[in-house]
Amino acid sequence: MKCRKCDQKAVINMRQHKLALCKDHFLDWVLEQTERNIRKYSLFSKKDRILVAVSGGKDSLALWDVLNKLGYQTAGLYINLGIHGDSDYSNYSQQLIKNFANKKNLTLHVVNIQSEYGKTIPEFSNSNKRGKSKPCSICGLVKRHTMNEIASKFDYDVLVTGHNLDDEVAVLFNNVMGWQVDFLRRQAPYIPAKKGLLPKAKPFCRFYERETAAYALLSNIEYIEDECPFSLGSTTIQNKELLNNLENKRAGTKLAFYLKFLNAKKELFSEIEDYHLIEQLFTCPSCGQLTQREGLCTFCRMISAK
Amino acid sequence: MKCRKCDQKAVINMRQHKLALCKDHFLDWVLEQTERNIRKYSLFSKKDRILVAVSGGKDSLALWDVLNKLGYQTAGLYINLGIHGDSDYSNYSQQLIKNFANKKNLTLHVVNIQSEYGKTIPEFSNSNKRGKSKPCSICGLVKRHTMNEIASKFDYDVLVTGHNLDDEVAVLFNNVMGWQVDFLRRQAPYIPAKKGLLPKAKPFCRFYERETAAYALLSNIEYIEDECPFSLGSTTIQNKELLNNLENKRAGTKLAFYLKFLNAKKELFSEIEDYHLIEQLFTCPSCGQLTQREGLCTFCRMISAK
Repeated sequence: MKCRKCDQKAVINMRQHKLALCKDHFLDWVLEQTERNIRKYSLFSKKDRILVAVSGGKDSLALWDVLNKLGYQTAGLYINLGIHGDSDYSNYSQQLIKNFANKKNLTLHVVNIQSEYGKTIPEFSNSNKRGKSKPCSICGLVKRHTMNEIASKFDYDVLVTGHNLDDEVAVLFNNVMGWQVDFLRRQAPYIPAKKGLLPKAKPFCRFYERETAAYALLSNIEYIEDECPFSLGSTTIQNKELLNNLENKRAGTKLAFYLKFLNAKKELFSEIEDYHLIEQLFTCPSCGQLTQREGLCTFCRMISAK
Repeated sequence: MKCRKCDQKAVINMRQHKLALCKDHFLDWVLEQTERNIRKYSLFSKKDRILVAVSGGKDSLALWDVLNKLGYQTAGLYINLGIHGDSDYSNYSQQLIKNFANKKNLTLHVVNIQSEYGKTIPEFSNSNKRGKSKPCSICGLVKRHTMNEIASKFDYDVLVTGHNLDDEVAVLFNNVMGWQVDFLRRQAPYIPAKKGLLPKAKPFCRFYERETAAYALLSNIEYIEDECPFSLGSTTIQNKELLNNLENKRAGTKLAFYLKFLNAKKELFSEIEDYHLIEQLFTCPSCGQLTQREGLCTFCRMISAK
């Protein structure tokens, strides 16, 4: 198969767009499409100081690379969660990200959860009822807290994450199967700032996972291929398989599901006041971050527990 | 496994309810649950004259049987669509329904599409662009028209159909994957009357397909086991398989998906005026039924086409 734009051999065929491209035109296409998403969803501008949450996986490293090439002001944030397992997951990820940042001469913030708060994520999970079976909810809590903390401390304007279409669609599917209206209301490429907190943006939300993987491979970005060991067998991964089956039967199913959802949201939620405006928030007396209840926030309650 | 209510051997185990029952207690349970649904969703009362749309399949015959046993005033409507195939589908269905009605001494209306309008459903489909690939949308149009006509001619108060949970959930899944907001808004166990048209009710919407099948079998109801030959490979059947896989992984998934949807609807659509009230309707100058456009209705346009 040939590239749509030149005579070279195509390296990827994106059936949902009926578009096959060679290496160079594909890499250009990823840059163009990212820029297009940034404008379409009003994510951020060249004036903004952007904090990229990097995990060491293909998506976040590809995203950081793309934003850097497009001329955005970016710095990275790596949160070392202390997850080891067979592959020394967290430390190996950290090394790959440091190499990447050094090579590109980019600022990288590293927060080591164990050094900072005395316990790794698996340790926090084991000592907490909420995390006993799966550490994922504890991990989410710690990451959100740390991202907000670093963004506020260094005065970033926006936090961006590498969530791709497959990620978004798996979460959307889960929220729909359980009809979690509040989660549906909040799922979007751009989540506006709550007072005092920074906005969040997902410039890769329209790329399939295979496209971000192809971008990382073709750009010679070294990334960690293993999934987090705790994610194995998760609902998200099961949902991804199911959605892949649907996609295989009809190319474009995932993209249509997501884009039609974003459209339907305007109709479904237009009448309802933005939840940010109606939610009453308090300030945690310990860390100073915003919280939904009076007193210590959930994060500070967890780290202060014996 | 033993019956929850007596010492007999259980004939069915409903994992989503953690409920195993013997034959007699299961048959009682179906009656009780149907009565409960009728009340919960305010479907109809003992004073109403009910028209049951019967296809000859397990669901509609089981429903007619149950409503009759519960003491409701029912008559059946069978629409012979002229679908033959290997099993002489339509005529065999008609025979089974006639036997059922005779045995129970119940009124049955039979409308033969070919005698009434000159063509069978496959013939209408072949001569109509809309039905070229699949006759299902033509079939839906003809059935809706005929049901409304009979209900109005014989002054029935409500039309009931045998849609079970699996049917409802497969349609819901389809509407969600395409985010068809208007279809989501209209999907419900009870669809109120438009002016001049009768309300529609689905008393079996909370029963799994295997429960209605078990009811029909255990009650010695003779029904047609074949699916409509045109339904093979349909999206609805594919969705059912996918949802069965989810159900097998976690019992109760389908029921939760449906019930949470009904709940979420209250929140999602509460702000929006009922579409029945805002939709402008016209009267078809030929058949006198209501239609969304001025002039002949879609049905009358189809049957008057060469």
